[in-house]
Amino acid sequence: MSHDDPALRRAGIDYVRGCVDIAAAVGSPHVAGPMYSATGKTRLLSPTERERQRGWAVESLAEVAEYAAGRDVRLAIEPLNRFETDLVNTVEQGLDLCERIGGANVGLLLDTFHMNIEERSLPDAIRLAGGRVFHFHACENDRGAPGSGHIDWDGVLAALADVDYPGQIVIESFSPEIREIARAVSLWRPLAESPDALVRDGLASLRRGLARAQTR
Amino acid sequence: MSHDDPALRRAGIDYVRGCVDIAAAVGSPHVAGPMYSATGKTRLLSPTERERQRGWAVESLAEVAEYAAGRDVRLAIEPLNRFETDLVNTVEQGLDLCERIGGANVGLLLDTFHMNIEERSLPDAIRLAGGRVFHFHACENDRGAPGSGHIDWDGVLAALADVDYPGQIVIESFSPEIREIARAVSLWRPLAESPDALVRDGLASLRRGLARAQTR
Repeated sequence: MSHDDPALRRAGIDYVRGCVDIAAAVGSPHVAGPMYSATGKTRLLSPTERERQRGWAVESLAEVAEYAAGRDVRLAIEPLNRFETDLVNTVEQGLDLCERIGGANVGLLLDTFHMNIEERSLPDAIRLAGGRVFHFHACENDRGAPGSGHIDWDGVLAALADVDYPGQIVIESFSPEIREIARAVSLWRPLAESPDALVRDGLASLRRGLARAQTR
Repeated sequence: MSHDDPALRRAGIDYVRGCVDIAAAVGSPHVAGPMYSATGKTRLLSPTERERQRGWAVESLAEVAEYAAGRDVRLAIEPLNRFETDLVNTVEQGLDLCERIGGANVGLLLDTFHMNIEERSLPDAIRLAGGRVFHFHACENDRGAPGSGHIDWDGVLAALADVDYPGQIVIESFSPEIREIARAVSLWRPLAESPDALVRDGLASLRRGLARAQTR
């Protein structure tokens, strides 16, 4: 979406338009992900060059957003941590991108794993995003089951309640057995006894947290 | 230290031996860092291959450790987060490496930035390392000034007190103005108004935390 080569930007736009078509066909409310760039681009760009690439991302995503609006689909753009992209790391940078793209159907996918590295306060970052939180990934600081690490889940869930987040909270984690994804996310050791155990423990912990948040 | 090529391992050994000589000459108690591998190696190795490379690291570092012991210098091995190395990410893995290297002069350099990504509990990880904590880097979760983010400094300082850590607490941070280092640590935005402001705020925060830890 932000590549120097206009033909590659066009290929990116066409790809995400195809995702929008699939979302519309299956009734998904949104297409979500770090769609401003290929992942893994971590380059020490000059401010001018970085700004130029963000400008291209804005131009490409504005076209996709308009297309998506016509199909009642929203775009949820995901900031990633510094080791996975150099373009959009923080909620603040994500909101800036949303504003420049324009359109009520453009917002953010927030992921606690990335936020743990980039945000000074996860609850404050969620409140800053407010109604632009379109989707939410819950993941422990080491990408394991929510509740097994040091993420402040009570603070995170309270902030989601404060912004009246109406969507789903999705546990995103990974298994080293799926080699392509393990390589993409730099996962070198298992994060739980089994994927099933991770889901079981993570869900139990999030449910306890939600119950606490509701009785605040 | 852990390269396939014996000539490169020899070059690594010679390099760190040279560092030991410098440490002895200037009176530094240790040589510290991720000296088991070149940084930035993030590969999806098979368990056999990873184990073989760890074995080479053990062999190389055992030779350096013996050399260092003769000069009254200690080795403080630093686990790095998963995006910077695939060999030693956690305190547990670091302690395993120390044990296999052997020698009372082999321990760990712990860094809160890396621990924030890899450890489920920073205080527990520090207590697990115990007397093997030879050096300590204090750094906020986004690599900014300690106290400006969400690291549990009270918990960290209490754990350092629990293990009677006798050494220095060093604020390690970076400025995007030093381009080579910025690239090496994936730093794409400034973390403070200025390097001076970062030191001032970080020191003030750590001093307040230490005062609280001492009156526990």
